[in-house]
Amino acid sequence: MTTSAVDTRHLAINTIRTLSMDAVQKANSGHPGTPMALAPVAYCLWNEHLNYDPQNPTWPGRDRFVLSCGHASMLLYSILHLAGVKNPDGSPSISIDDIKNFRQFESPCAGHPEHGEASGIETTTGPLGQGIANSVGMAISGKWMDGRYDFTGCNFDVYAICSDGDVMEGVGCEAASLAGHLKLDNLCWIYDDNEITIEGRTELAYSEDVAAKFESMGWATVTVEDANDLDVINAAFEQFKGTTDKPTLIILKSIIGYGAPNKQDTASAHGSPLGEDEIALAKEAYEWAGEKFAVPPGVTELFADNLARRGSAAFAQWQTKWTEFRSSNPEAANDLQSIFDRRLPEGWEAALPVFPADEKGLATRSSSGKVLNAVAKEIEWMIGGSADLAGSNKSLIESEDAGHFSSGDFAGRNFHFGIREHAMASICNGMALSGIRSYAATFAVFTDYMRPAMRLSGLMKQPVLYILTHDSIGLGEDGPTHQPVEHLASCRAIPNLLVMRPADANEVSQCYGAAVSDLARPTAMFLTRQNVPTYNRTELGDASGTRRGAYVLKDTDGVPDVILMGTGSEVEICMQAAAMLEQEKISARVVSVPCFELFEEQSTEYRESVLPSSVSARVAVEAGIEMGWHRLLGADGRFVGMSGFGASAPFEELYEHFGITPEKTCQAARELVAAIHN
Amino acid sequence: MTTSAVDTRHLAINTIRTLSMDAVQKANSGHPGTPMALAPVAYCLWNEHLNYDPQNPTWPGRDRFVLSCGHASMLLYSILHLAGVKNPDGSPSISIDDIKNFRQFESPCAGHPEHGEASGIETTTGPLGQGIANSVGMAISGKWMDGRYDFTGCNFDVYAICSDGDVMEGVGCEAASLAGHLKLDNLCWIYDDNEITIEGRTELAYSEDVAAKFESMGWATVTVEDANDLDVINAAFEQFKGTTDKPTLIILKSIIGYGAPNKQDTASAHGSPLGEDEIALAKEAYEWAGEKFAVPPGVTELFADNLARRGSAAFAQWQTKWTEFRSSNPEAANDLQSIFDRRLPEGWEAALPVFPADEKGLATRSSSGKVLNAVAKEIEWMIGGSADLAGSNKSLIESEDAGHFSSGDFAGRNFHFGIREHAMASICNGMALSGIRSYAATFAVFTDYMRPAMRLSGLMKQPVLYILTHDSIGLGEDGPTHQPVEHLASCRAIPNLLVMRPADANEVSQCYGAAVSDLARPTAMFLTRQNVPTYNRTELGDASGTRRGAYVLKDTDGVPDVILMGTGSEVEICMQAAAMLEQEKISARVVSVPCFELFEEQSTEYRESVLPSSVSARVAVEAGIEMGWHRLLGADGRFVGMSGFGASAPFEELYEHFGITPEKTCQAARELVAAIHN
Repeated sequence: MTTSAVDTRHLAINTIRTLSMDAVQKANSGHPGTPMALAPVAYCLWNEHLNYDPQNPTWPGRDRFVLSCGHASMLLYSILHLAGVKNPDGSPSISIDDIKNFRQFESPCAGHPEHGEASGIETTTGPLGQGIANSVGMAISGKWMDGRYDFTGCNFDVYAICSDGDVMEGVGCEAASLAGHLKLDNLCWIYDDNEITIEGRTELAYSEDVAAKFESMGWATVTVEDANDLDVINAAFEQFKGTTDKPTLIILKSIIGYGAPNKQDTASAHGSPLGEDEIALAKEAYEWAGEKFAVPPGVTELFADNLARRGSAAFAQWQTKWTEFRSSNPEAANDLQSIFDRRLPEGWEAALPVFPADEKGLATRSSSGKVLNAVAKEIEWMIGGSADLAGSNKSLIESEDAGHFSSGDFAGRNFHFGIREHAMASICNGMALSGIRSYAATFAVFTDYMRPAMRLSGLMKQPVLYILTHDSIGLGEDGPTHQPVEHLASCRAIPNLLVMRPADANEVSQCYGAAVSDLARPTAMFLTRQNVPTYNRTELGDASGTRRGAYVLKDTDGVPDVILMGTGSEVEICMQAAAMLEQEKISARVVSVPCFELFEEQSTEYRESVLPSSVSARVAVEAGIEMGWHRLLGADGRFVGMSGFGASAPFEELYEHFGITPEKTCQAARELVAAIHN
Repeated sequence: MTTSAVDTRHLAINTIRTLSMDAVQKANSGHPGTPMALAPVAYCLWNEHLNYDPQNPTWPGRDRFVLSCGHASMLLYSILHLAGVKNPDGSPSISIDDIKNFRQFESPCAGHPEHGEASGIETTTGPLGQGIANSVGMAISGKWMDGRYDFTGCNFDVYAICSDGDVMEGVGCEAASLAGHLKLDNLCWIYDDNEITIEGRTELAYSEDVAAKFESMGWATVTVEDANDLDVINAAFEQFKGTTDKPTLIILKSIIGYGAPNKQDTASAHGSPLGEDEIALAKEAYEWAGEKFAVPPGVTELFADNLARRGSAAFAQWQTKWTEFRSSNPEAANDLQSIFDRRLPEGWEAALPVFPADEKGLATRSSSGKVLNAVAKEIEWMIGGSADLAGSNKSLIESEDAGHFSSGDFAGRNFHFGIREHAMASICNGMALSGIRSYAATFAVFTDYMRPAMRLSGLMKQPVLYILTHDSIGLGEDGPTHQPVEHLASCRAIPNLLVMRPADANEVSQCYGAAVSDLARPTAMFLTRQNVPTYNRTELGDASGTRRGAYVLKDTDGVPDVILMGTGSEVEICMQAAAMLEQEKISARVVSVPCFELFEEQSTEYRESVLPSSVSARVAVEAGIEMGWHRLLGADGRFVGMSGFGASAPFEELYEHFGITPEKTCQAARELVAAIHN
């Protein structure tokens, strides 16, 4: 390399640093220290290793870059700007004006990187540990597409830069453990070992031998002693690329706020602007001559000559390979194209099973298992698994060729996530970001363990399916630690998450229809452990109303005296109560409410047709807390459900004890009707 | 040891096994395999090592035993029964009838061990990883009481049995990391390495070198190759007791369902009854002659001769030591006695600060910091810390002698929990279970990371204080990943958790008063990043209404036209709106609602006095979602708040953008009043 080329490299690195400092200073808010420290490694990775075409940032074969320490967002924005990454419409992903508007309303340069705001932001990061766990999901996706369809153009590499926080967080530990177990050799984490956390030196709270820890989990490790030594950094990346059968951790000893003489290597460089004076001193240290927000001549050219040239050649090569593959493997190519485009196979919904009436019925977890299998038959890239509860969750894809994803079989569709709910959900986000229709299964109560990742599914608009069984005190003897009480409410609270609780097998089928066809929302499906009857749809009408969130399951002639509403296993309590009330000449309509969010989206007319405002006598029955029901119950409505934790006993006794019975439902209805008649 | 003594030991071990098998079989539900596998180690620990007096199970100096794999609950119940552990009223903690009623309603033998159901259940377990994380909190408590008060009688040992699930879960990893960092040599985990998980062989999802991993985190490890080899087990415990400066992990190679010829060493021994036939075969393998639920002669005597004799002597010795300590260190002893009895110092509430009116005001996180410090001055055992955000959370105890808890200073009151929110909360539960008034601080959005532990605070009735700052879009530029939107609602959903959101400094003070004086409920306190005015209480009346959950902050003459309700930073929006409405001759009452749960507990009269049913024109303002407000809003009320995720921008712009302003509040009020007048 010529001296001038070396100089330009340093100029490029310092451009990342100064853009970051300047943007944080102008916003008067943000995190300058880490971009300053990590500019060299980000530069090397992007310009000298990453397989990425700035002109085609959604190219399915591209390497993925995840900035797990999302607070260092200016590092990513600077790179995307200098690399000339384009949005699909041809506009720059990040313009210099965007950078000047860092952290301002409607700038794509949000405080933390937000997926969907600009090309090149592969995932939303900020909540620590999530990015690296996502990266495991992305790496899995590459391996799986390669393994399943035998198209090597999908076996991309995934790089993630992570901080102390990422590797301290439990979700990061879980993800690392699974990545090592699965021998994901297309995964490389760069651990920014800067020895600084917000409260001070890392040693205040953290004294692990990180290399030994990762090695114990099946990772290769390599340490870079000086984050400014480009040759050693490049050698580390080469070592990663040469490593098979293991993911690689690059431990990078860096100095936070590098170059700022009074703040570097201290916590004060982490989360606040440096101040104009300190910036001036840092620029002096970098021998920086430019104005604020300057990009000196030669820098964008350097990215064009390296990253872009390499990327564009790789993209062209990939296209040739893809064209060949399409002609030799049209079926596999068609599936892959659907994954790339996030399309579903035409007519897949025809596979949704219809279940015959059956009084004994079956648990909705069981009908879910059947529907999942029917759907998975149509959509080969619907893959996922359970956090060690596949048998209980009925979440196994049972077809003969489904297989289990493992280091020995990357074509497998069933995942053993281990007892790691949080990483499971976060990994499923990473898979969804790659176009896979991922699903994650566990007990409903353990949504608490994976809530940060579920929230990110909603925020990133990723259609992850959460299969949540054992959805109430109906699980019985395992007791209050395992019985969801507040979980329906707390999941309904998460924006952009569909929460479904089907009442019988046919509603389950319809819920899958709604969930899978939604391409921009995750779904949390709550399912029973205990049996529920399969309703006679010839008598009652079909289950298509499920798709509208709530519908009349059983009606009366004329205006009903009372409306009984329920979800899941409690719909049958409403049905029995309605029959009992009929004996007393009280006419009751039964409304099944499988999904609040879908019902809210219906027209006023439809909602009025299901819940006429003239009928204020309404009883809702759900084996959870009341929160969230008022909107449907109105002012006079009554709620039959839980108000505290459950207990350990056979479930029939618990329903009796907590008063969630047809009798109590009748009593509430009777009192309401009487009050209105008086 | 004589042959007959050895025989009796095996008889005792087999009694644990058969009681467990029989109870699960009778309940037709439960987990027999692990108690069968772990009976020897549990026997050795309890009868030959644990410092525990069955007659005095709340003795503060006792060693703690945590069954982190709570599904193996019959192991604990069998031991408590055989050891003759007593309840405080002298009744047996677990009678043979209780065991026969395993998993039945109101039996203390719940599916998973529930703290408070019987003596000897030191914590509630079942959600994996929680028990071991609690155990770290207990070990910290012992070290702290010893370190702070120089009373060695509190430096008890803490033992926890854990499963694959416990060590796979992120919270378990976080807890292990911190325990190693803190060099808690009074902590011993016994890892049941049975190579079986629910989905099959552990190797399906887990292939770590567990010993190396723990060693990398600063633990000593010792492996027991045969879970039935009592001598080696005892040697391992001796090794733990001889180890200083490190916690110890005993890796115990066990066979799940040991003795059941057709089920042992398979996942089918985990979670279902073995069946009568297999039980018969297992009993044959044990050379077991007894009836169902039999306790053969000699077994309880063995526990009496060992555990009880040792424990009672230790208890007596401890009492002598304690008496001496009380006379030589009356002040320290008084504090310790308060911890043991869960009492607060008399008159502590006098320390609650009163803040003068101040229009500019201060952030409630800042007033919280001041109040915390004032309270902590009175209650020396109020200790805690932040997950690496102490500066932002204002959660530091600043008094000169407060110090930081570390391996070099076990007297420190401030904790660096590291970036480990989940373990922090679970550790605080363990500290609370030891009588410490623990607190945990982080950003409000990260309640999602620690929710399983927060739920257990509620379920176990432990008064942990959660200090949650940056409580809305009011945090501004960090954007949607950091902005709580649904978190007030989702925390309010957790049973037995007080959720508080004070509006100004004096409400903060009162909230601390309510939270700290509550001995049986945790509190989640939501606090602003941005400034809020300190109201003029001479004009408006004092802040004592805070304790009642909601109160009239500013009233009008006569019946108001409209009631404006708010929490936290949005109360000031209500105040400004009320002033604006006054100009329009609309009289508005402003109600501050710092705590829904406390308001619900007030008399009907009080609630009616604050929110008269005659005034149906009500507007609630909260920078979160509407869920949960209907109960206060009634049928006609309107909500001004969020309906989806936030955004990254300066906070004033966000409030404007999302329409959470005095103007929008006025508009809603105006429309309501007009509708009612028409």
